Amino acid sequence: MARPTPLSGFPEWLPDGRIVEQHVLDVLRRTFELHGFAGIETRAVEPLDQLLRKGETSKEVYVLRRLHDDPAAAEDDRSGQLGLHFDLTVPFARYVLENSGHLAFPFQRYQIQKVWRGERPQDGRFREFTQADIDVVGAGALPYHYEVELPLVMAEALGSLRDIGVPPVRILVNNRKVAEGFYRGLGLEDVEGVLRSIDKLDKIGADAVAALLVAETGASEDQARACLELAAISGADESVITRVRELAESRSVSSELLDEGLEELGALVRAAAERAPGVVVADLKIARGLDYYTGSVYETVLVGHEQLGSICSGGRYDTLASDGSTTYPGVGLSIGVSRLVSRLLAGGLVRASRSVPSAVLVAVVSEEARAASDAVAASLRSRGIPVEVAPAAAKFGKQIRHADRRGIPFVWFPGAVGEDGVRGADQVKDIRSGEQHDADAATWQPPVEDWWPRVQPAV
Amino acid sequence: MARPTPLSGFPEWLPDGRIVEQHVLDVLRRTFELHGFAGIETRAVEPLDQLLRKGETSKEVYVLRRLHDDPAAAEDDRSGQLGLHFDLTVPFARYVLENSGHLAFPFQRYQIQKVWRGERPQDGRFREFTQADIDVVGAGALPYHYEVELPLVMAEALGSLRDIGVPPVRILVNNRKVAEGFYRGLGLEDVEGVLRSIDKLDKIGADAVAALLVAETGASEDQARACLELAAISGADESVITRVRELAESRSVSSELLDEGLEELGALVRAAAERAPGVVVADLKIARGLDYYTGSVYETVLVGHEQLGSICSGGRYDTLASDGSTTYPGVGLSIGVSRLVSRLLAGGLVRASRSVPSAVLVAVVSEEARAASDAVAASLRSRGIPVEVAPAAAKFGKQIRHADRRGIPFVWFPGAVGEDGVRGADQVKDIRSGEQHDADAATWQPPVEDWWPRVQPAV
Repeated sequence: MARPTPLSGFPEWLPDGRIVEQHVLDVLRRTFELHGFAGIETRAVEPLDQLLRKGETSKEVYVLRRLHDDPAAAEDDRSGQLGLHFDLTVPFARYVLENSGHLAFPFQRYQIQKVWRGERPQDGRFREFTQADIDVVGAGALPYHYEVELPLVMAEALGSLRDIGVPPVRILVNNRKVAEGFYRGLGLEDVEGVLRSIDKLDKIGADAVAALLVAETGASEDQARACLELAAISGADESVITRVRELAESRSVSSELLDEGLEELGALVRAAAERAPGVVVADLKIARGLDYYTGSVYETVLVGHEQLGSICSGGRYDTLASDGSTTYPGVGLSIGVSRLVSRLLAGGLVRASRSVPSAVLVAVVSEEARAASDAVAASLRSRGIPVEVAPAAAKFGKQIRHADRRGIPFVWFPGAVGEDGVRGADQVKDIRSGEQHDADAATWQPPVEDWWPRVQPAV
Repeated sequence: MARPTPLSGFPEWLPDGRIVEQHVLDVLRRTFELHGFAGIETRAVEPLDQLLRKGETSKEVYVLRRLHDDPAAAEDDRSGQLGLHFDLTVPFARYVLENSGHLAFPFQRYQIQKVWRGERPQDGRFREFTQADIDVVGAGALPYHYEVELPLVMAEALGSLRDIGVPPVRILVNNRKVAEGFYRGLGLEDVEGVLRSIDKLDKIGADAVAALLVAETGASEDQARACLELAAISGADESVITRVRELAESRSVSSELLDEGLEELGALVRAAAERAPGVVVADLKIARGLDYYTGSVYETVLVGHEQLGSICSGGRYDTLASDGSTTYPGVGLSIGVSRLVSRLLAGGLVRASRSVPSAVLVAVVSEEARAASDAVAASLRSRGIPVEVAPAAAKFGKQIRHADRRGIPFVWFPGAVGEDGVRGADQVKDIRSGEQHDADAATWQPPVEDWWPRVQPAV
């Protein structure tokens, strides 16, 4: 077998990169659990007709078939076909319906899994990637305060990664009710069309968006300018709300939906200013394209890496799922873990202090005495110290190089057995400083910062 | 959308079941890391031709195609096709070859991931399931002592699960060299054929296997009986080795390979008797079917649940991978986590003490005072206590029922604000005992056993 080459769009990390990714996942999980989110996993596959229910993602889905099924027959009958999930929201909605009798609502869950999309791979865009989602879903109703709570949980989770070298984040928030109320108040009825055009602002600029609005949504020049004025408003405090109100007044726009949306957005900005100062910014151009959001919407950029795109997005949806008798509204956000971690690694922002868990390599004096080294290792492990034993009773210099290549900081030398049959004192060497001294496997321990691999800024 | 029904072969757990599974995964990971195994993940897909290299598993593979690819064209050209991996060994071999220049050998890795097989689902046999693998792979050579070490790591990992209610395990070991040396010494050349027949012993019985050996491997009645006599030998101490030697002598079988295998098997049994007494049993009928093993082979049963099949299998392979210039021998074992966990849950052996992480529900006195409850929650979380805040300022009875339904042991009541504007003392209630007393969010903590959900025997 010739040396295989990587598959574009299917990222994999070397062991030290995986330590960084695992640390990120551990921190996210801990934050989610501290906030009471229950972890679940769903299967990787869903019936194809469920995956295609919304239509627009159809081209991204990977369809499965068993090798010895007849592909022509399978193609004819879509009903039994399975596809890989392309997000964690569709499977979560199905899980909620399937298990509604066994879940307590409102149900808060986190879910950290791989998803697959057959898109053309680009920087930060993969065909297989890991998402970390939190959602709260209610049965029948879901109070607004969760729309404040959830982005703050994400702010805390991402903020907990600052000390390993993750750049600060900026969470951009908007509210669909504000946009919809404003557009309708202006006399524009094609709300989706307007949102779709506004969504292109960063890509094509204000003039082109104005032209689009006129051409595609039937807006007048003046209405188009008003939409752009709304989209230009942003800020981290309540002055944002005042500016939207002033704009609406100057355009004689009055709308209950707009008022409701502004009240909600104001509450979010107020709470965020107190609980996560400087992180949350109201940005009235955030549209979240074609999605099914009905209230708050969120996007998140890594400060200094804005061109990477959003690393954490989501919003409120009035109908996550419905079984005919009950409707389940929800609010959630999803972190693009692979996008984040690939930037941390490729950008040289974060690194692991070593490539293996081991803090100690126990040297082997001779193959006959391997059991003595195994006993030292077992003693250290029994106190929670990660240890490996040298693969062979090579010269000590070679055994030290084995540790050095992996970044293992300590090498342990079992005492030599003298002619009298008595074993001398063990010694442990810090191979960074060269310091070596007697040590007892029943009591010695490494410094806390050397105990497990450290994940730290790479500077 | 009507209520969806589960897909056979694709298990999912309710939140409390997932807590059990997550605990099992955490314990395995910790044990592997204490032994210095580096964690990696590989992509879920491999080129189809790599998955089918060994041929015999071909019918189990799920093939992928993008929805809008032409299925006929894809079918014609297998070269670009991708399939879901059906184990973690094939992808690991590819990973080793692809990254050999960046890995330090011997390379010890653990890998915990889902795999997929399009088999007919049965009890303990799924189409999607989680495996937890450890392997050590060398470049060019790999010392025998790893064949002793690895099953003992698994014995420790599975033993660490005893206190949550996992039954004891029995690791059955054999050595291909013993079987091959004995068969060849008897004059039987179709070693694979003999192994294949012996592998059916538990299913079809000794007489049928004897008939098979005669019919399919050209064995005489007497040779067949000798093979069965070897397969009947088992035991937890070195007397096993003596009995095989005596059998070989009585049949005038002499073979260097047999001697080498017996020496290895003896070393394993000796070390296991000391380091994991009562767990490892030499069982000369363990054949591991058609696999590519060349030395030690392992299977593991849950005591009292033998009919579930092996929950942890593996062995030594002289050629895990090869790139023409270097051959990579390895030894590894794989735990069938889904098989194990499904038995723990369905068999009512293990349960979680609650269905959410939260140790505390902070009650909300009124929606206007929600910020006070959020502040209590933040204070408790800052000291690592998992907390959720009540969804609505309902009557306290209803808020307590919210906690009770989820198994949350404590409800926190923020002090009422008096007419003088001063907030009274907070109180915390243990809803199991009904005990309630004043508490300070800056210092109170739950008993250690209530801090996180406990995973425990279900008796």
